[in-house]
Amino acid sequence: MSDEVQEALEKIFSADSEIYQNRGFQRRIGFGKRPALINIDLANAWTRPDNAFSCDHMDVIIPAVQDLLTASRAKNVPVVYTSTAYAVTDGPNSDMGLWHHKIPAELLQLGSEDCEIDDRIAPQSGEQVIYKKRASAFHGTYLAGFLRSLGVDTVIITGVTMAGCVRHTTEDAIAEGFPPDRGSRGRRRPCPRCRRMEPVRHRRQIRGRRAAGPRARLSRSPRGPGRGECTFP
Amino acid sequence: MSDEVQEALEKIFSADSEIYQNRGFQRRIGFGKRPALINIDLANAWTRPDNAFSCDHMDVIIPAVQDLLTASRAKNVPVVYTSTAYAVTDGPNSDMGLWHHKIPAELLQLGSEDCEIDDRIAPQSGEQVIYKKRASAFHGTYLAGFLRSLGVDTVIITGVTMAGCVRHTTEDAIAEGFPPDRGSRGRRRPCPRCRRMEPVRHRRQIRGRRAAGPRARLSRSPRGPGRGECTFP
Amino acid sequence: MSDEVQEALEKIFSADSEIYQNRGFQRRIGFGKRPALINIDLANAWTRPDNAFSCDHMDVIIPAVQDLLTASRAKNVPVVYTSTAYAVTDGPNSDMGLWHHKIPAELLQLGSEDCEIDDRIAPQSGEQVIYKKRASAFHGTYLAGFLRSLGVDTVIITGVTMAGCVRHTTEDAIAEGFPPDRGSRGRRRPCPRCRRMEPVRHRRQIRGRRAAGPRARLSRSPRGPGRGECTFP
Amino acid sequence: MSDEVQEALEKIFSADSEIYQNRGFQRRIGFGKRPALINIDLANAWTRPDNAFSCDHMDVIIPAVQDLLTASRAKNVPVVYTSTAYAVTDGPNSDMGLWHHKIPAELLQLGSEDCEIDDRIAPQSGEQVIYKKRASAFHGTYLAGFLRSLGVDTVIITGVTMAGCVRHTTEDAIAEGFPPDRGSRGRRRPCPRCRRMEPVRHRRQIRGRRAAGPRARLSRSPRGPGRGECTFP
Repeated sequence: MSDEVQEALEKIFSADSEIYQNRGFQRRIGFGKRPALINIDLANAWTRPDNAFSCDHMDVIIPAVQDLLTASRAKNVPVVYTSTAYAVTDGPNSDMGLWHHKIPAELLQLGSEDCEIDDRIAPQSGEQVIYKKRASAFHGTYLAGFLRSLGVDTVIITGVTMAGCVRHTTEDAIAEGFPPDRGSRGRRRPCPRCRRMEPVRHRRQIRGRRAAGPRARLSRSPRGPGRGECTFP
Repeated sequence: MSDEVQEALEKIFSADSEIYQNRGFQRRIGFGKRPALINIDLANAWTRPDNAFSCDHMDVIIPAVQDLLTASRAKNVPVVYTSTAYAVTDGPNSDMGLWHHKIPAELLQLGSEDCEIDDRIAPQSGEQVIYKKRASAFHGTYLAGFLRSLGVDTVIITGVTMAGCVRHTTEDAIAEGFPPDRGSRGRRRPCPRCRRMEPVRHRRQIRGRRAAGPRARLSRSPRGPGRGECTFP
Repeated sequence: MSDEVQEALEKIFSADSEIYQNRGFQRRIGFGKRPALINIDLANAWTRPDNAFSCDHMDVIIPAVQDLLTASRAKNVPVVYTSTAYAVTDGPNSDMGLWHHKIPAELLQLGSEDCEIDDRIAPQSGEQVIYKKRASAFHGTYLAGFLRSLGVDTVIITGVTMAGCVRHTTEDAIAEGFPPDRGSRGRRRPCPRCRRMEPVRHRRQIRGRRAAGPRARLSRSPRGPGRGECTFP
Repeated sequence: MSDEVQEALEKIFSADSEIYQNRGFQRRIGFGKRPALINIDLANAWTRPDNAFSCDHMDVIIPAVQDLLTASRAKNVPVVYTSTAYAVTDGPNSDMGLWHHKIPAELLQLGSEDCEIDDRIAPQSGEQVIYKKRASAFHGTYLAGFLRSLGVDTVIITGVTMAGCVRHTTEDAIAEGFPPDRGSRGRRRPCPRCRRMEPVRHRRQIRGRRAAGPRARLSRSPRGPGRGECTFP
């Protein structure tokens, strides 16, 4: 993204934020006590190059999710992965719904390597992998029922793409009653650097939450941003 | 079921039916033009003996579903199977929800032979197998969205158990707006012979519908009930 | 219900219970800590005579629900009422769905006296009245989202009719992850006396739960069953 | 919106569109044969000034919706309105869910003038008004069931706000299987002139569809854009 575009985006978000603040919006939902980690569509079709669905900035996202997984597993935080995959990608009885009229959903064949979770962040035994058919991880899946029966009250949502599946999942999480945390201090705006992704150092969040320390400290990474990493916030 | 009990059941149903008819209930929903076949939980845990979930009368049900499958495939009627299976059957992060507090859901391990569809009625390529977590085939699954995007307006529901998963699926089908046909000429009452099951000669139904002949004809099976088959209706 | 039929029913339930127990079913789900009270369809069409939907035994049900309401309000337990009502009961754009093809749903006009909650158990300010379109109180309503955002983990379901709306609501409550308590010590079987209803002395339940006393004590009513009341259990 | 910002937005959208087109996205879903009109949150809190929820450009939106209503009613197209309103806006048993932690949902009291549909576009008898609790018109409502039982296969979505309730409704419509048409020739991008709204001359759409004429003709309005109207497209 060019500097020019980034500058424009920041101008737009800043103007919008001011309107909302003046009207009493932009309050904080806060966190609960029983979080779950939801990794959206971090399967090979999205995380590896040369696919119609390939996303950028995996050098940032994969390590961040690895950190999050380590922290979640250490605390027995339930881990859920989603992928999008279809059993029937041809003919009149497909399960692609309307989407293949709009996007190349026919590339996402259930059982193919493309639809499996990236093995750099592989699911472990005891973790859920939900093969969804739609953008939202809640739509047409058992995710809401699963989270509820576990007493989950906060969802930490990572993955791609932010403007599509992550956003719709986040909207549904609010609607369903699970306070969503899309990372990056819950900001509703895309990362100014890697706009379509969910880039943040989620590891810090869990640490920050546990330490109950001041939020400002979240931005000081013990590791420091690596080369090419997203430095936001 | 003893004769005594069957007699009592018929008395109760008959009394109930009279009340409902007098009050203007018991109308007919009728059929649409684009049916789908939904086979509920005809996986080995239910269709084979010696499992906590084993159901009786498979000598009737399996051949009837085989006939239905043949007829459906010949007409490109979408075929859906469900099974009930859990990825995590132990520990605090299980996807069994509340059910394992009530029934031995922990026996239904996702990926096990028990949870696979009975190979006498095996799914073919292009058919959906939905691994659900709850009784209803609609709850927490993409079934409703799948049926709708295909323009399905009638569901033919088979399988087991009738008082549990089949019933809840049928209730949800009505709620969702798909006229359900539980076979047996849409009767709401259990088969007087094999009460908990869904025993009927579904093949006749599709034939009957195609021929648009009088409903009374549905009961004249070209094959005739085999030994041990349910003769209802 | 005649003695003969009641006797038959008890025989059937007893035989079924034995099968289930032998197979490891019939476990107890138990209770949570934050209950809500859900009163199903206790509107005039069901609670008053001479309507196609009229139910019997209101001399038992209304006082029992009055007791439950008093106890719930004293403890700030959230109270929800449902009624079933349709905005458009004629023509092609009705919201009755499929149901009017089966039952006289066209009698349930939104805004009519028939669809309002019986004023003997009138909702108070701060309580929810949900006008549903289907049998289940969860289907096509905000009930699940409402309960979840309040942290409700147990639902106490009363009302009518037991074989229809109460049952479907109970099934969905289990599916959604809210342990349902249909009163009457959570039995899955209809009351042997007033079979289609949900008649029990729910007041005792809340007391019993609070006292954490032995379940057997629940049956000793401080008031004693009045004339014509259901003495079950 | 300043010219500078608008220019930046167009640059961003243009760059994005090129990426998507190169990858085989941006296909057309097309239309069905049985549309319904869904008017999102055109209640006084949004359509009138001096409310925290007030939206701009009502001089464009209200006449456009009036035209759409006239056309829809002439063809017996089902009309649905939504509003967002809460029965309990105070205390622990509120139905506002998480939203009041984020936005001033407590201003939207069910039954208040603010939550009623703007009387310039008042519902007629036989039209549905759905009081939703969440952003999406599908979430926690009977909308999907209603549309399905009517055989609706296309939804025309108007209203406000575009980045919130209209967007989430549109996403859910795709997920549910109803091809959504947010007007403006189905563009996924906000109107360059009145960014957050849904500004288009929907009347032309219905005409265009009826005439089955070339899409280019849709932009020639018989009325011509009035002063201050959105001229997009």
